[in-house]
Amino acid sequence: MPIPQSAEGRKAYELDRAHVFHSWSAQASLDPFVFAKGDGSYLIDADGKRYLDFSSQLVFTNIGHQHPRLVEAIKKQAETLCTLAPAHAVASRGEAAKLITDRLPDSLNKVMFTNGGADAVEHAIRMARLYTGRYKVISQFRGYHGATQQAMNISGDNRRWPNDYGAGATCRFFGPFLYRSVYHARSEEEECERALEALENLIAFEGPEAFAAIILETIPGTAGFMPPPEGFLPGVRELCDKYGIVMILDEVMVGFGRTGSWFALDQFDVTPDLVTFAKGVNSGYVPMGGIGLSDDIAHFFDERAYPGGLTYSGHPLAAAAAAETLKIMADEKIVENAAHLGNDVFGPALAELQDKHPSIGEVRGRGAFWALDLVTDRETKEPLSPYGTVNEKMKQVLSVCTANGLLVFNNMHRIHITPPLNLSDEDARKGLAILDNALSVADEFYVGAK
Amino acid sequence: MPIPQSAEGRKAYELDRAHVFHSWSAQASLDPFVFAKGDGSYLIDADGKRYLDFSSQLVFTNIGHQHPRLVEAIKKQAETLCTLAPAHAVASRGEAAKLITDRLPDSLNKVMFTNGGADAVEHAIRMARLYTGRYKVISQFRGYHGATQQAMNISGDNRRWPNDYGAGATCRFFGPFLYRSVYHARSEEEECERALEALENLIAFEGPEAFAAIILETIPGTAGFMPPPEGFLPGVRELCDKYGIVMILDEVMVGFGRTGSWFALDQFDVTPDLVTFAKGVNSGYVPMGGIGLSDDIAHFFDERAYPGGLTYSGHPLAAAAAAETLKIMADEKIVENAAHLGNDVFGPALAELQDKHPSIGEVRGRGAFWALDLVTDRETKEPLSPYGTVNEKMKQVLSVCTANGLLVFNNMHRIHITPPLNLSDEDARKGLAILDNALSVADEFYVGAK
Repeated sequence: MPIPQSAEGRKAYELDRAHVFHSWSAQASLDPFVFAKGDGSYLIDADGKRYLDFSSQLVFTNIGHQHPRLVEAIKKQAETLCTLAPAHAVASRGEAAKLITDRLPDSLNKVMFTNGGADAVEHAIRMARLYTGRYKVISQFRGYHGATQQAMNISGDNRRWPNDYGAGATCRFFGPFLYRSVYHARSEEEECERALEALENLIAFEGPEAFAAIILETIPGTAGFMPPPEGFLPGVRELCDKYGIVMILDEVMVGFGRTGSWFALDQFDVTPDLVTFAKGVNSGYVPMGGIGLSDDIAHFFDERAYPGGLTYSGHPLAAAAAAETLKIMADEKIVENAAHLGNDVFGPALAELQDKHPSIGEVRGRGAFWALDLVTDRETKEPLSPYGTVNEKMKQVLSVCTANGLLVFNNMHRIHITPPLNLSDEDARKGLAILDNALSVADEFYVGAK
Repeated sequence: MPIPQSAEGRKAYELDRAHVFHSWSAQASLDPFVFAKGDGSYLIDADGKRYLDFSSQLVFTNIGHQHPRLVEAIKKQAETLCTLAPAHAVASRGEAAKLITDRLPDSLNKVMFTNGGADAVEHAIRMARLYTGRYKVISQFRGYHGATQQAMNISGDNRRWPNDYGAGATCRFFGPFLYRSVYHARSEEEECERALEALENLIAFEGPEAFAAIILETIPGTAGFMPPPEGFLPGVRELCDKYGIVMILDEVMVGFGRTGSWFALDQFDVTPDLVTFAKGVNSGYVPMGGIGLSDDIAHFFDERAYPGGLTYSGHPLAAAAAAETLKIMADEKIVENAAHLGNDVFGPALAELQDKHPSIGEVRGRGAFWALDLVTDRETKEPLSPYGTVNEKMKQVLSVCTANGLLVFNNMHRIHITPPLNLSDEDARKGLAILDNALSVADEFYVGAK
């Protein structure tokens, strides 16, 4: 990225390179953007250049950057009481918990707060183990649940490979994904049926009484946004009931409006026992995650102590930001706008782009979460970049975006469009035009292209 | 605790009881304080009653509640840029990293930021495993490193028992603790020698080439503040060098001035490879933790990607709070005040209390971290509350403190005195007078007391 011209920007760049160890990266070749300010759907770099943020950073600034009401709420809480131990009570914490449970299914009425998604998942798995007295966990290949040891162990993407010190007693199966079906299915119905069959076979051969939990992203996010067929999650719920397994839905990425409903699970006829969340809960303005608990599981710990916790559980500043975020989202109809963006803008526009660009193998999405599955051949579905990599071809495509002032979320051979949910139609079309150009570069790698 | 009288306080209480799942607790019997405001060394409840905070909550508000400069810095960053993905750069993140590494040993120059202590420990262990290509880890009984799975597995206190799903390949040994020596030692020197011998025996019989890391709290905190004998940590360093093991010092609780030096490790002649921190880094005003990396380990990931990360790594708001905290601590000589409190106030006063109260078996402490080891018999050292419990006797002692407006940190049979480091001498003496009363209750349970 351009090294900043301003003295302040250059200093920030140099301090970063000298002292900040960046995640998921080889450190020597890093060349980060230096950002200085935010403004709704835009980030502004140290030299004043504006970037349209179709990434929502890591899919978390659901109400955009520097929303004035949210900034004000953080300042107000900062002036009142920044921090407090988890054992005590404070207004912002209780209010955030109430507003979150108001949006969860009726049977989930308590929240345990954490610092982020990974530790929410860690505690959800622990609750399920203590509640059931069992150990093993089922998760999906391609799912991702965070980078602490337990969260990593139940993740099903390639990030686990160098990190899996095992002993999560995790069994993984392939969830439904018709476009790249491992079940040789030819319809969503068939894919659904076969994935549920595979899941029940796994349970049968790993021990029907062995499992504490099944954990699934309601809609797998980083893996490329694969909404399950209608019957899949209800089918999983049935298996959970049949075998006494706790059902955990991970809504860290898709929760809080991202897919056009408050939670993605609202779009399926299913009630989980535990829901993990983070990111959108306060648009990432202050670190926070958590678990929504069913009454059954919450009451299980009424008389026996839950043996787990963390220093910043229910942090007052983070909680104040969450409470205000949920109020802003309701007042400004931001979830409705996410649905509108999906139905009226991205849905039709991306279908058009797919007609135009052979490199788009499939478009998948809802609301403000869309994935473009880029291929070099629609017949073989050969990905533009092999599994687990971002190759030079993919980097060329992405560089057209950044050079034209558009930030997108990239994973392997896919471009993810995950803008703030309150993006304007105008900015949506502006970003789509830049994408259109970038996709022409992707087309150059399509089989038979000259 | 008293249910608040004010409507606002009562509402906060009720929302908490209805919707907040508290850590480490049976939920039905909870009766939390409702706190509304903070003021230096004081917390103020919903009805305006002031409590002197000798707990620093969970030992993290090192510069006290609502420090005006820190509140201002948070507000300023909130107005500028609340949040940003870890891949980019932002001024506050680089500045915090620099100021932290300035206080670490010369060979540690990079920081990977996390959300808190547990995930800092998780990533430190992972770095050590990748760096050494080995798997096993050594830790201390009585140590505590957090509640995610890996952090829990290497912890050595009773909180692990219901939570240990194993496979951290952790081997534990008893660190030096003369007052309750397992080594039948009669001097600090002998205790040190025998603990190091035990450690080397463990290495020999678990496989000298098996170990990735040794992780120790520089001074075990929650376990009751046991400063190691002078030669212990240098001895551990020698064993690490001899066997190619990464040395991790956990400064989550004792870092940032708590023991009267910037890091507790400054008081010992030792340079670790990795240092984990959280809490005091920004007084807990915004959730943050991290790892200081040696140049060797940082450079190991120059050309190969570090396979780990988290959404809020280097969060701009948390980083701005950290940078300002470190500046405030320097400007106001807060570390020096912690040393003064230990040397001139708590040290002498607690020695006097020990003379007066037979129930104080031992006083251990430095700076602004002191532990009173309460016993029913100085001869047998029988703890006032058995290992892993807080019994009714202990609760009676503690209730004298809260009834008189003093918050202390309690673990099992111990009272920990961990006030803000900028506590005034006057407030220190005020709190000590309340403790004096509470200890008279402890004396009633002393063997032979009528």
